Amino acid sequence: MSPSNRPIGVFDSGLGGLTVLKALQQLLPQENTVYLGDLARLPYGNKSAEVVCRYAQEAAAFLLGHSIKLLVVACNTASALALEGLQKRLSIPVVGVIVPGAQQAAKHTRNGRIAVLGTLGTIRSKAYHRALLDIQPSLCVFAQPCPLFVPLVEEGWLQGEVTTLVARHYIQPVIEFGADTVVLGCTHYPLLAPTLEAVLCPEVQLVDSAVATAQHVSTLLRLHALCANTPQASHLCFVTDEPERFAQQAERFLGHPLSNILLCRL
Amino acid sequence: MSPSNRPIGVFDSGLGGLTVLKALQQLLPQENTVYLGDLARLPYGNKSAEVVCRYAQEAAAFLLGHSIKLLVVACNTASALALEGLQKRLSIPVVGVIVPGAQQAAKHTRNGRIAVLGTLGTIRSKAYHRALLDIQPSLCVFAQPCPLFVPLVEEGWLQGEVTTLVARHYIQPVIEFGADTVVLGCTHYPLLAPTLEAVLCPEVQLVDSAVATAQHVSTLLRLHALCANTPQASHLCFVTDEPERFAQQAERFLGHPLSNILLCRL
Repeated sequence: MSPSNRPIGVFDSGLGGLTVLKALQQLLPQENTVYLGDLARLPYGNKSAEVVCRYAQEAAAFLLGHSIKLLVVACNTASALALEGLQKRLSIPVVGVIVPGAQQAAKHTRNGRIAVLGTLGTIRSKAYHRALLDIQPSLCVFAQPCPLFVPLVEEGWLQGEVTTLVARHYIQPVIEFGADTVVLGCTHYPLLAPTLEAVLCPEVQLVDSAVATAQHVSTLLRLHALCANTPQASHLCFVTDEPERFAQQAERFLGHPLSNILLCRL
Repeated sequence: MSPSNRPIGVFDSGLGGLTVLKALQQLLPQENTVYLGDLARLPYGNKSAEVVCRYAQEAAAFLLGHSIKLLVVACNTASALALEGLQKRLSIPVVGVIVPGAQQAAKHTRNGRIAVLGTLGTIRSKAYHRALLDIQPSLCVFAQPCPLFVPLVEEGWLQGEVTTLVARHYIQPVIEFGADTVVLGCTHYPLLAPTLEAVLCPEVQLVDSAVATAQHVSTLLRLHALCANTPQASHLCFVTDEPERFAQQAERFLGHPLSNILLCRL
C-alpha cells in the first residue's frame, strides 16, 4: 500500500470519538480509517494523568500495528494528558482535539470570555487554558468540570428533566462568568447540545471540536503529502469490549449504523 | 505468621467495597485486612463478563501475593460474573456479596416479592435471580438496572432534586411490581438509602449485603478454624490509581478516615 493510502488511526475510550470519526469521514471521504474504542477501561475522564498516558500509549501502539499514517486522539482527556508524550514518541503526525477546539473558540468570541466544559481529567490538566492563552493571551477562560454528563450520554438521557437540571447546575457558574463562547471539551457533549442551548443564553456560541479537528487533519495530510486517492475507502473499527453493544450505541454518535466491529485486547 | 493470622483480602473496582470492609472491621475487629480498589479500570458495572472475570482474576492474584487466607469479592458485578471461576481456581475460601444479600432478602420478605437494584452487569447476569430462587423457588423477583446511581454516588450527589428524580425513574417499576423487599445490589447503593427510602413506600425493607457478607465471612472463618487472634489488627489498602483522591472519598464509605493507601498495578 502506498504511504498515502494507509489509514488514519482514531482512538477514544469509547463512543465519543465517533463524533470526530464522523467529521473526518464527511470532510475526507476518500480516507481509510481505523477506529479504536477502549471500552474495557472507560471512562478516561476520572483517571489520573499517569494512567491515561499509559492507556493512550497502548492504544497508539495497537493502531500503529495497523500501519496508520496519522493518529487522531479523539478524546479530550487523552488529548489533554497524553498528546505531548505521543507526539514525542511517534514518528507519524499526532493530532488532538484540544488545539483545534481552542482555535475555533478564540475565533468565535467577541467579548473574550470563553468557558470550557470537560471531564475532571481535562479540566484539571488546564490544557484548554494553555491552548487558549497561547492563541490569545488576553482571553479570559473559565473551566467547569461536568462529571455527570458522560454517564447521562452513555445512558441515552440526552434531554428531559434530569439532564436539564444537571446542565443547569454546571452551567449556572458559566452564565455568571458571562461567557459568549462555550467549548464542548468532551466528545460526548455535542449530543447534549440541544439541552445546553436551552439552558444557556441564546446568543452564546457552542464550540464542538470535531469539525475543527477534521479540518486540522486535512491540512496536515496536504502538508505531509499524505492525502489518499482510494476509490472506495475502508473503515475498520476495534473495541476492547462488547462489539455488539457498541454497534447498538454507535449510530447515535455516527449518524449511521456501524458494521464490522472487531474485538481486540490492548 | 500463623495461617489464621494472615489477612482477609477484599476487592472492589473502587470505593463501594469499603462498605463491606467497614462491616468486616466492625464484626471482626481482630482480623487483619488487605483492600484493593481497581480505580484505574472502574467501573466494572458496564463491562462484559469476560472483561470483569479477567480483572477479578488479576485482583485475586495480587491479593494472594499478600498471603490472604480468605477472599471477599466486595463488588456485586464481580460477584455476579466472576465468583464461580475464582472459587474453582483458588484454594482459599472465596466469598461474594450476592448469596448473603439474597439470603437476607428471602428472610425479610413477607409477600414473596423481591426487587433487586444493580448495575447493568449484575442485572444482566441474573445472579440474584438464581440465588433467590435457589433459596426459595416460590419467590417472585424483579430486577432493575440503575446505571446512573454509581456516577451520582461517586460525585457525592447522595440527595437532592436530581438524585431523587433519577431514583423515582428507576423505582417506579419496583413500586408497580409491589415488592416489600428491595436488595441494594451494588455496594455503592447503601449511600443512597435515605433517598430511596423517601421514594419507596415506608413499609418496604432495604437490604444491604455488607453486614450479611461480614457474618458469612465470620461463619466461614470459624468453620475453617481460621479466626485471628491478633491483639492489634493491621489494615492495608491498595489502589490502582490516585491514592490521595481515594483517601478523600473513602471516609464517606468507611465512616472514618483511611490512611496508608498505596498505589499498585495489576
